[in-house]
Amino acid sequence: MLTKSSFIVHIKRGKILREDNKKDELIVGKNSVIETLSTGRAIGSIMISKSHSSKRIREIIFLASKAKIPIKMVENKKLSLLCQSDKHQGVVALASAKNYNSLQDILDYAKLKNEPEFIVICDCIEDPHNLGAIIRTSECVGAHGVIVPQRRSAALSATVRKTSAGALEHTMVARVTNLVTTVNELKRRGIFVYGADMCGKAFWKKWVNLSGPIALVVGNEGRGIKKLLKEQCDDLLSVPINGKTQSLNASVACGILLYEIARSRNF
Amino acid sequence: MLTKSSFIVHIKRGKILREDNKKDELIVGKNSVIETLSTGRAIGSIMISKSHSSKRIREIIFLASKAKIPIKMVENKKLSLLCQSDKHQGVVALASAKNYNSLQDILDYAKLKNEPEFIVICDCIEDPHNLGAIIRTSECVGAHGVIVPQRRSAALSATVRKTSAGALEHTMVARVTNLVTTVNELKRRGIFVYGADMCGKAFWKKWVNLSGPIALVVGNEGRGIKKLLKEQCDDLLSVPINGKTQSLNASVACGILLYEIARSRNF
Repeated sequence: MLTKSSFIVHIKRGKILREDNKKDELIVGKNSVIETLSTGRAIGSIMISKSHSSKRIREIIFLASKAKIPIKMVENKKLSLLCQSDKHQGVVALASAKNYNSLQDILDYAKLKNEPEFIVICDCIEDPHNLGAIIRTSECVGAHGVIVPQRRSAALSATVRKTSAGALEHTMVARVTNLVTTVNELKRRGIFVYGADMCGKAFWKKWVNLSGPIALVVGNEGRGIKKLLKEQCDDLLSVPINGKTQSLNASVACGILLYEIARSRNF
Repeated sequence: MLTKSSFIVHIKRGKILREDNKKDELIVGKNSVIETLSTGRAIGSIMISKSHSSKRIREIIFLASKAKIPIKMVENKKLSLLCQSDKHQGVVALASAKNYNSLQDILDYAKLKNEPEFIVICDCIEDPHNLGAIIRTSECVGAHGVIVPQRRSAALSATVRKTSAGALEHTMVARVTNLVTTVNELKRRGIFVYGADMCGKAFWKKWVNLSGPIALVVGNEGRGIKKLLKEQCDDLLSVPINGKTQSLNASVACGILLYEIARSRNF
């Protein structure tokens, strides 16, 4: 679990849970990171020590920015804890379980299949188990791809791959800089964008039309869809609740809505 | 995560992940366990060292059997690793986050609400995150209770409580010795028992009738519903898949089916 949040939690505990990380590959040291960047292998993020600065580190920052890989400036001791050694030269990259696709790849795939677009947008899903389960359900309903933001989202780590039960290999995941821009781009292409939100229409109402090109935005586990993004959605859908609990698990709510869309598409 | 499976996995790694267990309370030593048993406080299971035998331990076995608490005979060193000390006197109990209810409590609750029964049966859900999410969804759809088997199921640990997002406090969970007997008992009371299985009817077909008193059996994450139990179900329901992935996450599939039942009940 190499998401930003879990990483910080684990470091705060003063040690790294190797059990969680063992399949996520750490790329340690300046040369290794530059080498990996040049081969184009998928990298989830790069952590650079605040106390290190050199020409090579500036080169890494330049290459990472060019490849749109998030960079996190962290305390030196955090890197030492993560690597369980001081010999990290101030740079550690977290390898990704899969290369990201582009938004165009997803749109092309829908065109190739001659189907109206069906896209899932994850607005800052931070728990890799949830992201994995959402990717798994997306593949099961025949969605053309999943879009995640570059920042504040679980990376495509080994945990995501494991939770997706193989679906990650068959699903296009695009990482974009700005979800608002992406949603507007999708709307411009005639894709109707629904947001999953407690204030939306109950998904099972008869007047809810889920046919045609569609994108579903699922929000963060705690705070839901960001305000600015929610305002850009064409409409909001909710999963009604008949109990004392405030909300459903993000991946469960997403699964219910995705299957409702799939049903409308007569798959 | 104090389920049988995770416990064993952790032990095999030669150390205990205290991070997972820290909120689950260990009750260590003969006197403490006997004291807890006599107060009736919820206990998930009791582990007894194979190399220990005494009158007091036999007393614990007797009391635990009477209270239907699973007993696991384990190697002495496993207990030492779990407690991080040798001073466990051969007995460790794992406290439960909640007391279990009885099947009758669930049936009485449905009667009290004057609603046809709506019950979720978890056949050996081993992942506490899944059990927590299923309990959460069950509460959200207004189910009257969740039934789990005494053995091979995640216990109501702190992880389950956390994943349920508070739903555990509002949901009755009954632990039964034998699910087949329980399913037959429910059928005898006029409750229609559906099993969630890939070979079942697609849940969205028009001829699927989900109204009236109903129970839904959800199977284990890996192998689904046990054969004997599946044979006892009145009918099987499936969530159709239009992708290369073999199956959905257990809690997602359960959520989709529970919402389909909720929709039929016009909540």
